[in-house]
Amino acid sequence: MKRRELLKNGSLALGGLFLTPFTAKANIFKEEFDGKKAKNIIFMVSDGMSIGTLQMADMYSRRKLGRPSHWLSLYEQNLVQRGLMDMASASSVVTDSAAASSSWGGGHRVTNGSLNIGVNGEEYLPILQKFKKAGKKIGLVTTVPVTHATPAGFSVYSKSRNSQEEIASVYSGLGFEVIMGGGNKYFDAAQRKDKKDMYTVFRNKGYSVARNKAEMNAAPANKPLLATFDEDALPYSTDHLSSSFMKNNIPTLAEMTSKAIGQLKDDKNGFVMQVEAGKVDWAAHGNDISGLIYDQLAFDDAVKVAVDFAKKDGNTLVVITTDHGNANPGLIYGKKVDENFDRIQKFSQTNEWILQGISSGDSTAKIKERISQANAGIMISDDQAKEIQSYYAKAQMEDGVYNPRHLPFKLLSQIQQEYTSVGWISMDHSADYSEVAMFGPGSEKMKSFMKNTDMHTFLLKVAEVENKF
Amino acid sequence: MKRRELLKNGSLALGGLFLTPFTAKANIFKEEFDGKKAKNIIFMVSDGMSIGTLQMADMYSRRKLGRPSHWLSLYEQNLVQRGLMDMASASSVVTDSAAASSSWGGGHRVTNGSLNIGVNGEEYLPILQKFKKAGKKIGLVTTVPVTHATPAGFSVYSKSRNSQEEIASVYSGLGFEVIMGGGNKYFDAAQRKDKKDMYTVFRNKGYSVARNKAEMNAAPANKPLLATFDEDALPYSTDHLSSSFMKNNIPTLAEMTSKAIGQLKDDKNGFVMQVEAGKVDWAAHGNDISGLIYDQLAFDDAVKVAVDFAKKDGNTLVVITTDHGNANPGLIYGKKVDENFDRIQKFSQTNEWILQGISSGDSTAKIKERISQANAGIMISDDQAKEIQSYYAKAQMEDGVYNPRHLPFKLLSQIQQEYTSVGWISMDHSADYSEVAMFGPGSEKMKSFMKNTDMHTFLLKVAEVENKF
Ligand SMILES: [Zn+2]
Ligand SMILES: [Zn+2]
Repeated sequence: MKRRELLKNGSLALGGLFLTPFTAKANIFKEEFDGKKAKNIIFMVSDGMSIGTLQMADMYSRRKLGRPSHWLSLYEQNLVQRGLMDMASASSVVTDSAAASSSWGGGHRVTNGSLNIGVNGEEYLPILQKFKKAGKKIGLVTTVPVTHATPAGFSVYSKSRNSQEEIASVYSGLGFEVIMGGGNKYFDAAQRKDKKDMYTVFRNKGYSVARNKAEMNAAPANKPLLATFDEDALPYSTDHLSSSFMKNNIPTLAEMTSKAIGQLKDDKNGFVMQVEAGKVDWAAHGNDISGLIYDQLAFDDAVKVAVDFAKKDGNTLVVITTDHGNANPGLIYGKKVDENFDRIQKFSQTNEWILQGISSGDSTAKIKERISQANAGIMISDDQAKEIQSYYAKAQMEDGVYNPRHLPFKLLSQIQQEYTSVGWISMDHSADYSEVAMFGPGSEKMKSFMKNTDMHTFLLKVAEVENKF
Repeated sequence: MKRRELLKNGSLALGGLFLTPFTAKANIFKEEFDGKKAKNIIFMVSDGMSIGTLQMADMYSRRKLGRPSHWLSLYEQNLVQRGLMDMASASSVVTDSAAASSSWGGGHRVTNGSLNIGVNGEEYLPILQKFKKAGKKIGLVTTVPVTHATPAGFSVYSKSRNSQEEIASVYSGLGFEVIMGGGNKYFDAAQRKDKKDMYTVFRNKGYSVARNKAEMNAAPANKPLLATFDEDALPYSTDHLSSSFMKNNIPTLAEMTSKAIGQLKDDKNGFVMQVEAGKVDWAAHGNDISGLIYDQLAFDDAVKVAVDFAKKDGNTLVVITTDHGNANPGLIYGKKVDENFDRIQKFSQTNEWILQGISSGDSTAKIKERISQANAGIMISDDQAKEIQSYYAKAQMEDGVYNPRHLPFKLLSQIQQEYTSVGWISMDHSADYSEVAMFGPGSEKMKSFMKNTDMHTFLLKVAEVENKF
């Protein structure tokens, strides 16, 4: 069998540390892909993924499922090129997601919080608009609102990432073939300031609109698709897995990715799609270990969908990366670390579920029971429950849920540490360089270290699209 | 000029993201090194280096010196292969340095704390003894005692890493050509339990003995060399740089590496050497940011020495890695993070220097002044100084210095965070996968993900030494 066919069949068996025989070549990228154009690009972002997040998800998978994560399995099989990427923004060595996505999307470092608008008001044309002008089909898939920073940084200009209603309006004029994720409230007439029904606007432009999994599955391939499955972000995978209602109505990131590829793949000019696991970042902000690992694994399933397609297709570059570290979680040395780490496998609800479900009148017994239910039977002390309880006297409700800033996410995570052995440096982004892996044509040209803005030029070059716009 | 000559001259200029011209090959490893034997191996370990440590040292270098770290410069120039390595031990997903070094050195995962002794008492012959039997010259270079876990795991068996006097005795029978670092107290007759003068033992076997930099420099190339420059570990680079006495008497890791290469390089059978920056781990245990970054940069200078030699030599494989994460430090998002990070450039003494120099009778003013002197003028509050002071009433002296366990390293680091924006998950090792980079012959065979024990077989194979002992 030829190498090419081996790759296509996904059966390139690389046992042990070496290819067999020992003298076989470890670097298949060059001979396989060199000089070939990346007709399609799937750009996958696990938002806010520290290296410890990748590592714990992989170890979780090995210990629970008996197999590596799909991402690290690509490393084990030597099927990808790897690098580190410096993600600094124009304003800081530590980026936010808007500046990070803009650095890739517009090719310039901008101030944290802004989208492809330079420090002197320059507008940098986002890469998906460039690819659209070059005749390619375009897709956006995410687990947070489709108007959120990471998809928006590939798509639009805006002084502020917070202008999500406006971004929804701009999207309606871009002609993208797939827009899929959360964010109903930015499209819904009743919830928008301007009372405009964005769904009608999209329908009038020929879009199918899906609001649940069945509607997504039923959407025809010959029409562009707008799908929003929740008001704001989609649920965490931890909670999603524990709810048949959610599972029936809201697709996973892998399911969305698969549907999106189906919508985009049959075009002679190819397609470019961004796929984001946005809630990995949110879980890191909340120092929530099951939220973090389960959403990273949901991302990992989407990686498999993309790479399986790319293996069959042969003309698709898959980029797998993150926009910044967040909280730098890690498993800490100690007698119980293995046992504690395995306990997370039985966690069934996120810290958000725990804390949003406590009322100011709840007894300490009720609080202890709720945490025990969510966290595999762990029993916190009365004093710890009292400390949690104390936050609720002053916690304020907004739109029917508590403002997360008033809830004791940090305290809960500190209490959980005794049972999980997981530590966090903060509840915010870190400056750690981002891990990048590439599979497919163009990957052979990747360097092991790059600046975020280099990625912009790289993607256009490997797709052989002129950077003239 | 041929590629080979370009490499030798170290002038392979790879501007921008791509090689020029665009179609040039990015992967030089295969065509350069494929099928070539690694006659020499330099195995370099920054002990306990989390990815954030590598990242902050690189960023520090870029911002202060205007150039990348040597390690990441190898990535930027695409001169190395990169991978991640799973460092779990037989007893835990989080390893200690003894089990980590044993996994490489003996090819088996052992229990934390032990050196190449299996769970049923099996003795796994350490790799440097295998290479010695194959006729190669052998070197050990470290900034901690030469009998410490990392060099010992490449060299000896022992049920406990703590048997350092015994390990010193075993070393005398191994015939290694270079043993260089700290640890006088394990060789000195007056300090050993058995009152044996190990220096006399080594001299009787033909060794030169050096106790300071001048003696090291004067040691002849035709004799094996034992050098111990301090009682236990060598000073942190931060303190070393601030003391002309230390600078005159104690070599840097780069200076030791350079001397060791000079002792080993002229042999037809080649050499194998381990170089360790052991105090990167110690600084991480102490949550000491200047200790961490400055020692990582001292390691980085040694990387340059090794790679410069390997470029000229053409037959030398350089492996650059760490044995585990530690404390997962990172720069945290915030308004002052850039300014705070740059403040570390002016730190002149470690937290060890600060805390070991405080006496129980010191006033809060004196404590504040000491911290200000060490940390670029920062002025902590009276309450913070009082809290530090409170530790000294119960702090016990041992051998003339405080037991570090009684000193407020954690508190000091928490106070410093406001001025440095650096966070830590703990004061101990983490399970994060280790970064590995390889330069030279054999590197083309490296996979992007490996188990620690695979490294053992890998090194023997690329050196074409039979694994028969
Ligand atoms: Zn974030
Ligand atoms: Zn350690």
